[in-house]
Amino acid sequence: MTDRYLPFRQVAKDLGVDAVALVPGCNFERLYRKSFSSHERPLVVFIPAQGDPAALVPNLELRSFDLLNFEGAVFDWRDQTGYQGAFEALAAHLPMQSVAVEGQVMRVFVHHAMVKAWPQLTIVDAEKQISGLRLRKNAEEVEALEQAIRISQNALADVIERVRPGLTETEVETQLVQALFAHGAKEQSFRPIVAAGENSARPHAHARPDYQIQAGDALLIDFGARWGGLCADITRTFFVGHASDEAQEVYQTVLNANQAGHALASPKVTAHQVDDEVTSVLEASSYADRIRTKTGHGLGRAVHEDPYIMRGNHQQLDTGMVFTIEPGLYRVAPDGFGVRIEDDVLVTEDGCRSLTTFSRSLTVIG
Amino acid sequence: MTDRYLPFRQVAKDLGVDAVALVPGCNFERLYRKSFSSHERPLVVFIPAQGDPAALVPNLELRSFDLLNFEGAVFDWRDQTGYQGAFEALAAHLPMQSVAVEGQVMRVFVHHAMVKAWPQLTIVDAEKQISGLRLRKNAEEVEALEQAIRISQNALADVIERVRPGLTETEVETQLVQALFAHGAKEQSFRPIVAAGENSARPHAHARPDYQIQAGDALLIDFGARWGGLCADITRTFFVGHASDEAQEVYQTVLNANQAGHALASPKVTAHQVDDEVTSVLEASSYADRIRTKTGHGLGRAVHEDPYIMRGNHQQLDTGMVFTIEPGLYRVAPDGFGVRIEDDVLVTEDGCRSLTTFSRSLTVIG
Repeated sequence: MTDRYLPFRQVAKDLGVDAVALVPGCNFERLYRKSFSSHERPLVVFIPAQGDPAALVPNLELRSFDLLNFEGAVFDWRDQTGYQGAFEALAAHLPMQSVAVEGQVMRVFVHHAMVKAWPQLTIVDAEKQISGLRLRKNAEEVEALEQAIRISQNALADVIERVRPGLTETEVETQLVQALFAHGAKEQSFRPIVAAGENSARPHAHARPDYQIQAGDALLIDFGARWGGLCADITRTFFVGHASDEAQEVYQTVLNANQAGHALASPKVTAHQVDDEVTSVLEASSYADRIRTKTGHGLGRAVHEDPYIMRGNHQQLDTGMVFTIEPGLYRVAPDGFGVRIEDDVLVTEDGCRSLTTFSRSLTVIG
Repeated sequence: MTDRYLPFRQVAKDLGVDAVALVPGCNFERLYRKSFSSHERPLVVFIPAQGDPAALVPNLELRSFDLLNFEGAVFDWRDQTGYQGAFEALAAHLPMQSVAVEGQVMRVFVHHAMVKAWPQLTIVDAEKQISGLRLRKNAEEVEALEQAIRISQNALADVIERVRPGLTETEVETQLVQALFAHGAKEQSFRPIVAAGENSARPHAHARPDYQIQAGDALLIDFGARWGGLCADITRTFFVGHASDEAQEVYQTVLNANQAGHALASPKVTAHQVDDEVTSVLEASSYADRIRTKTGHGLGRAVHEDPYIMRGNHQQLDTGMVFTIEPGLYRVAPDGFGVRIEDDVLVTEDGCRSLTTFSRSLTVIG
């Protein structure tokens, strides 16, 4: 029987630490095909470089944890007595000098409980190495992501038909979310960005309940369904009623940059090279002062993960990697507006395939 | 002008630390009325016991951060150069020996970055004290919670009309989520629990795509909308087709326990006393071996927060506190089933008011 912990044991060996600790999150879900919402209750699996794993589990989750067919000792704890005793029992069972953790996922209260239980413990942030095991997506993951994208694109098509001047950003956001779930989303990848007019110039804007969309506005929609554990992440920017000459020119510039990314991405090319190619298109335009972001980020079970498509990141792309290409130009107020066109692409043997297929042509709505 | 940081400064003084550090989450949202999704990018606000606050902000969030009318120095950083330099610039600006953090919210990578920037720093987990500032809900928060509950109850009413034997747990979950958003939810408080038959005996079960609901099953639904930042959290347990004698007796026992909690909760009564009263009803029944959980938890911007309604927690209840009363009995397989009846109650001057009003009577559906 294959040891499902082998990749994690290898991470521990490579880092020279005694074990890897996993908490509920993307890596945990991928390993066990099950999610836990841990809230205030620590749940931690320790995978030593060799030997059986051990787990610390809230007592009321034990029957759910049973479904994992866990191979090692389980130390449970109850709300009434707290978790520190279970950490200490686990420490007696599994002595460690050092442990690698997911620094972007594990919270400080677990860190503190571990330090108390293993007083000499060195805690290494191995987010990159542990989550790096998710870099290349398998066929099942690509299929789930395509389903997440299909749902998202169907929802977007519904919503843009209904946008009219006078609707607030929040009303459009509500329609979008309803459409996502109506089309089969189980979760959203993140809270959507529905931003019109000058709000579209904020890369991570939130919908405003008090702003009514006006003719002439840019309308930037950045959103995605999560399905089967995989996150879609799509942005399209529309124009309401009409698009000014400047808006059209900006749009074409961003689209050219987006297309340059699609054309270059392929195995062996680096993340740096893709960002450089895409950003150079923006820099060569008369709107270079409106650049605010890098080209993109990896996408999978987490909505932001490796590979980050960024100058200075000389990581080579490889088949099965998925990332966003999302150049944008953001003009700050007065008369501010932003344009971003974001696709999700899969690296294939001879290039890349865009999983997002929603039209990128300049589209006037409302 | 009132100093909006006074309560946080007081926490720092009470703990004898130099500052409080806040990261995006419930406390941040309550203070600034704005949320940030920080993903892989640290965003931290430091509030010293006295003097101006300081913030570390991702460059691409600066225009969103502007909306906070922040009073102090802002140290921004870009993806291309990383965040450590900004932490160090901030450390030079704001020397600290000790800082209080939200241990349930802050992640390890921020902890590590702080230790690197302030090498002598003592990091105190002050989750209880910082989040304790949210214990008593104001009128606006109660109103938002009532709206979240209204949406949730409307959705539940829709769904139970449609449940039929043969539907899978996942199909019912999908209908529930769609109904939540159709009724106006912006987010869910958490992923719903829709669990039939023996799955209902798992306190935190997930819906199974391959299990068809059968006549005679218990159907436990635990869910809630989040609205205006506040989280509803409701459980009702139904019976499909018919309820066995045992099921009816168990249901009545749980309902009696639930009612005992409503009757006792009031200012000056302790969380311990409420749990003791409720749990004693279950213990006095012939189903005492099916007890798995404490009575409840505080509810607000976080779906689990203080006060935890638990024996041993001698915290006194006070007006404006909101918590769940959710006794349950869980019989493990074979023929396992669980019953839980969960209400959200607000402590008032002379007792408590149930914000949830959905029928608690034994209900046979399908």
